[in-house]
Amino acid sequence: MANDLTMQQSIEELRNFFEEKIQLTEFTNQPERLYEPIHYIMQLGGKRVRPVCTLAAAELFGKSPGDAINQAIAVEVFHNFSLVHDDIMDEAPLRRGHATVHKKWDENTGILSGDAMMILAYQYLSKNAGTRLNVLFSNFSRTAIQVCEGQQYDMDFEQKPTVSLDEYLGMIELKTAVLLGESLRLGATIAGASDIDLDLIFEFGKNFGIAFQLQDDILDLYGDPEKFGKQVGGDVMACKKTYLFAKAHAIANESQKNELVDTYNKTNIENAEKIEQVKAIFDNLDIRNRAKADMNTFYVNAGIALNSISVEDSRKKILKNFAESLMVREL
Amino acid sequence: MANDLTMQQSIEELRNFFEEKIQLTEFTNQPERLYEPIHYIMQLGGKRVRPVCTLAAAELFGKSPGDAINQAIAVEVFHNFSLVHDDIMDEAPLRRGHATVHKKWDENTGILSGDAMMILAYQYLSKNAGTRLNVLFSNFSRTAIQVCEGQQYDMDFEQKPTVSLDEYLGMIELKTAVLLGESLRLGATIAGASDIDLDLIFEFGKNFGIAFQLQDDILDLYGDPEKFGKQVGGDVMACKKTYLFAKAHAIANESQKNELVDTYNKTNIENAEKIEQVKAIFDNLDIRNRAKADMNTFYVNAGIALNSISVEDSRKKILKNFAESLMVREL
Repeated sequence: MANDLTMQQSIEELRNFFEEKIQLTEFTNQPERLYEPIHYIMQLGGKRVRPVCTLAAAELFGKSPGDAINQAIAVEVFHNFSLVHDDIMDEAPLRRGHATVHKKWDENTGILSGDAMMILAYQYLSKNAGTRLNVLFSNFSRTAIQVCEGQQYDMDFEQKPTVSLDEYLGMIELKTAVLLGESLRLGATIAGASDIDLDLIFEFGKNFGIAFQLQDDILDLYGDPEKFGKQVGGDVMACKKTYLFAKAHAIANESQKNELVDTYNKTNIENAEKIEQVKAIFDNLDIRNRAKADMNTFYVNAGIALNSISVEDSRKKILKNFAESLMVREL
Repeated sequence: MANDLTMQQSIEELRNFFEEKIQLTEFTNQPERLYEPIHYIMQLGGKRVRPVCTLAAAELFGKSPGDAINQAIAVEVFHNFSLVHDDIMDEAPLRRGHATVHKKWDENTGILSGDAMMILAYQYLSKNAGTRLNVLFSNFSRTAIQVCEGQQYDMDFEQKPTVSLDEYLGMIELKTAVLLGESLRLGATIAGASDIDLDLIFEFGKNFGIAFQLQDDILDLYGDPEKFGKQVGGDVMACKKTYLFAKAHAIANESQKNELVDTYNKTNIENAEKIEQVKAIFDNLDIRNRAKADMNTFYVNAGIALNSISVEDSRKKILKNFAESLMVREL
C-alpha cells in the first residue's frame, strides 16, 4: 500500500474532477461519423458512478484521484460502449433524456462507434498503468466478457416464461454488479492495494451493485413515480422478469406459480389491470418486504467487505456515504 | 533477437498447426447463445492468412510457432469479430459459403457475440506475453481502432459520388492493410525482434496488404469468373468505389470525369450494359495496366521492407513465397 495518504475528497469533488477531465478528453477525430457519436454519448453525463468509484478507491488506498483518472475514463467509456450496443439490441429510443446513438445516427453507426469505444477503453486502461498493466488487463477483460454474458442472459430471459432466483441473481451479477466491483478494483490496483484488499473492494462493489439492482426492481413497481420520473410498473408491462417476479415464483405454491406466470406474461390486457393483478399476487406473498430484506442482505454484505479492508475506518466513510446516498430511504 | 534459430516450417505446415490449435480451442461456454456463434465463425475456416503471418514472423526471428500461438489466435479472433460486425452493417447473407452469424441467428446475437470476440482477442493477446504485453497491447489497440476507422471510411464512401486516390488508399490501409502488418509484428514482437525490424515487418505486411487489395479490385472486373468463383463486375454493379474507379477519376479530364461519375453511379441500367460502359471508360484510360503498375509498386515496396530486415535472407524465403503465392500471375 502507498504511504502518501492524501486528503480525501468528497464524492461531489471527485465527480466534478472527473467531469472536468472528461470534458477535456478529445474523443473527436477522423472520420467524424465514427467519433462524433462517441463524443455525444460521453458528454451526455449521467451519475458517473463507476469512474467516481475508481477515483474514490484510489484515494482510499492513499493515491490521488489524478493517478487513476485514465482507468476511471476507461471504465466510463466501457460502460457507455455497453449502453450504445444494448440500446440497439433493446431498440431504446432514449438515453438520459436524449436520442440514443442509433436513433440520432443509425444502427451501423451505433455498432461501429461502440466497437471503437471498447478499444478506446482498453487504451485508457493501459495509460500510466506501469507494471500493473497485467493485473488491470486480466481483471478488466474478465469483467468485460462477463458484462456481455449478462446481457445475453438478460435477452435469453425475455424468451422464457419464468426464471429462478439463482438465474436472475447470476444475470444481474454479470450484467451490472461486476462492473461496479471492477471500477473500484481498478482504482485500488493503481494505488497498489494488496490482493486481499483487491478481492474485498471488488466484493463490496459487487454486493452493492446487486443491492442497487434489487432496489431498482422494487422501485419500478413500488416507487413514487413523481420522485423517480419513471412510469410505475414498466417492467410488469414489458413482461420483464425482475427480482420481484423470481422471488414470487420461488416461494409460491403450484397454483400460485401458474397464476403468476400466466398473469405476468399476459399481453392482451390493459396495463393498469395487469399491474393490479400482479401486485395482488405479490402482496399475497409479501414480495415487497421479502425483496427489501434480500436487498438489505446484499447491502450488509457489501458493508462487511468494506469494513474488512485493511485501511483505517475513517478513510472508508466516503465510500460508505456514497453507497448510502444511492440507497432510497423511503423504500 | 533470439539465438535459438529453429528449423522453419512451410506455410502449409504453419496453417495446419494453426488449424489444429484453433479446432482444440474451447470457444464454447455459457450462455450458449453468446458462445455458439463464436465457435461457428471460428470453425468456418478461411485462408487463415493473418495467424499464419504471426506464426511465420515468430519463426523468422528464431522462435517456434508455438510461442506465438496465442497472439495468432488473437489476431484471427479479432479479424472474425470485424467480419461478424461488418456483415451486419453490409447486410451480407453469406460468409465463406455459409450463413453469416446475423442470418443464422439474428442481429442482436451478431452484435453481442462480436463484442465478446473482441474481448477474447485481447485475452489471447495477453497470454504468455510476459514483459512484452505493453508493446503488444499498444500496437494491437492502435491497429484495432484503425480497422474501425477504415470500415467507417468505407461506409462513408458509399454516400459519396467520387473518392480520390489518396482517400481510397487511406481507407484500405486502415481497413485491411494495417491488420496484416500487425499480424506479422505481433509474432516478431513475441520473438524479441528489434524496434527497427518491427517497423520493417509491419511495413512489409502493410504494403503487401495494399497490393493484395488492389489485386482484389482488379480481379473483380478483369478476373476469370470460373477461376475466382466471383461474379464479374460485382463492385461496378454495387457502385462500390474501387481503386480502378479512383485511378480513373484521378487521371481523367473534366468531361471524362463527368461521364465516369455518371455512369458508375447509375442504378437504373442493366448490369451487363453498365459493366460494358464502365469498362469502355477504363480501357480508354488504360486503367487495368495502370492499376497493375501501382499494385506492383506496393508489392515491390513490401519486398524492399522484407529485404531490409536484419535476418539472413534464406530465412525470409517462406514469407516471400507466401506473398508470391497470394498474387495472381495471370492478372
